[in-house]
Amino acid sequence: MNIRITNCGHYVPSTIETALEVSKKINKSEDWIISRTGVRERRISDIDVDEMGAIAAQNAIKDSYPPDLIINASGVPKQTIPDTSVFIQKALGYNGIPSFSVHSTCLSFLTAFHIAAGLIESKQYKRILIVSSDRGSIGRNFNEPESAALLGDAAAAVILEPDSSSELISYKMETWSDGASFTQVKGGGTYRHPDNPKTISADHYFTMSGPKVYKMARKKVYHMIQVILKENNLTTDDIDFIIPHQASETAIKAYSKFGGFPESKIMNIIGQYGNCVSASIPLALSIAIERKKIHRGNIVMMIGTGAGLSVACTLIKF
Amino acid sequence: MNIRITNCGHYVPSTIETALEVSKKINKSEDWIISRTGVRERRISDIDVDEMGAIAAQNAIKDSYPPDLIINASGVPKQTIPDTSVFIQKALGYNGIPSFSVHSTCLSFLTAFHIAAGLIESKQYKRILIVSSDRGSIGRNFNEPESAALLGDAAAAVILEPDSSSELISYKMETWSDGASFTQVKGGGTYRHPDNPKTISADHYFTMSGPKVYKMARKKVYHMIQVILKENNLTTDDIDFIIPHQASETAIKAYSKFGGFPESKIMNIIGQYGNCVSASIPLALSIAIERKKIHRGNIVMMIGTGAGLSVACTLIKF
Repeated sequence: MNIRITNCGHYVPSTIETALEVSKKINKSEDWIISRTGVRERRISDIDVDEMGAIAAQNAIKDSYPPDLIINASGVPKQTIPDTSVFIQKALGYNGIPSFSVHSTCLSFLTAFHIAAGLIESKQYKRILIVSSDRGSIGRNFNEPESAALLGDAAAAVILEPDSSSELISYKMETWSDGASFTQVKGGGTYRHPDNPKTISADHYFTMSGPKVYKMARKKVYHMIQVILKENNLTTDDIDFIIPHQASETAIKAYSKFGGFPESKIMNIIGQYGNCVSASIPLALSIAIERKKIHRGNIVMMIGTGAGLSVACTLIKF
Repeated sequence: MNIRITNCGHYVPSTIETALEVSKKINKSEDWIISRTGVRERRISDIDVDEMGAIAAQNAIKDSYPPDLIINASGVPKQTIPDTSVFIQKALGYNGIPSFSVHSTCLSFLTAFHIAAGLIESKQYKRILIVSSDRGSIGRNFNEPESAALLGDAAAAVILEPDSSSELISYKMETWSDGASFTQVKGGGTYRHPDNPKTISADHYFTMSGPKVYKMARKKVYHMIQVILKENNLTTDDIDFIIPHQASETAIKAYSKFGGFPESKIMNIIGQYGNCVSASIPLALSIAIERKKIHRGNIVMMIGTGAGLSVACTLIKF
């Protein structure tokens, strides 16, 4: 599918929260946080996800013309109804432009990217804006130190357009619902509605069994990489750069330790920004482009896992 | 785009709640409810959205083979994370099949239908299951009689496959975010999180300014119908059947009163099931097929509005 990332932008809040500051909230040491998660600092937003997303989108659009479709691809919404795309569109002043949301937690960006490619390839739209914006700091459960130490706030956006010089080479997604309970926010919907006497305070916060996720994810991700390389007659050497979901430092390092890719080819911003949920992949992409780690014509792999447990891999010619 | 609805199924809970029963909860008369909303009775579910959706999906799949993609296209999720598609997939026993959610409230089904058509047309998938499942009864605010009297519970599912004898003729969507505040559930996300001291109990329930929605929607829907007919060189006579979102009886009757379509061509199940949010359109479609109101080769228009305020119209050769 001949689609091209024509522009990219991101927004990171200016407020920095260090591992030392978080350590006091979770009753662990600074060293414990850094050795367990790799997150030395993260950003904390005082504006909501729609405004964060709109700034990232504006940084992608710059002085150019509006998109013909807006997809919000985030992990947690601003509110239940309407979906967050409406508020991002409103903040951008694009009244009338069709807008909807896609949700597969940390993989929302890759899902939306594939959807957008399909809609462009089938000539439905010509300029699609994808925005991922998450404010994970709101969902931190300080009684669960490891996950609370991981999360940070950020937003990122890309514009996709048809262009025969770039390509979505291959895409794969798998959802392993036997891991559905490994990563959850149980509240916010019909299951643990505030009306429900079973609903407890912890239901409104993020909970994760890190070791279970890592164990399942490593195997599934490794297998997916092997399959996607083989199907496209590629080897690890053919991949110019990897943008992994910034799940944790251990998860990112697994791409070199077990995946066979050199560390120099793997984008790693977890130390500075933490796990920014859906925004992690497009933020890492946007920063990689800014730092000139990716060049036109490069074969780039975007890959990661999300609650579900889902695994997805997007192979592009940038 | 040559796609075909190869199968369709739905699930309506067996428990019926009559206008008389609702009248006591909202302190209005039975006549007030029926004359304002047209909803004589609605179904109330005691199982959650994922189980409802899985039954509808099973009714569509029957003894046939699994889909290669599952899209949950519902208005309100089971929980914040993971997205509901994961739980529907788990209930169906389709571990491994890629699954994600699409959200544009009452238009989620039409959005997912368009996405699925793009993915099929661009040869990404061959058998996509779309499931819409909503349990609006959970979100009823009995202090807001009109909206509380509208909502009902249901689920519906369709299977889409490539087939040159059927077609998605045309699709249009517009999102008018100047109407973002007309229909809301403010809670469930980052904006009115339980942590936020501004959050009040009413934020967890559905609120709608019916007259504002109707005024804006009538104009936008009428205009979209004119444009889509003109662009496809069709007249109202060429449309064999209309599946409107079952927003309210007034909204459905507007298609004949102002839209120029005969009442006999417009699916109207609001009296029996109420407004089932995202499930309204596919439920009306599934029942229309069951009642033999739609035949292969017919030109069918699926149309409606959703929180946003969004308007969408899908024209298919069934």
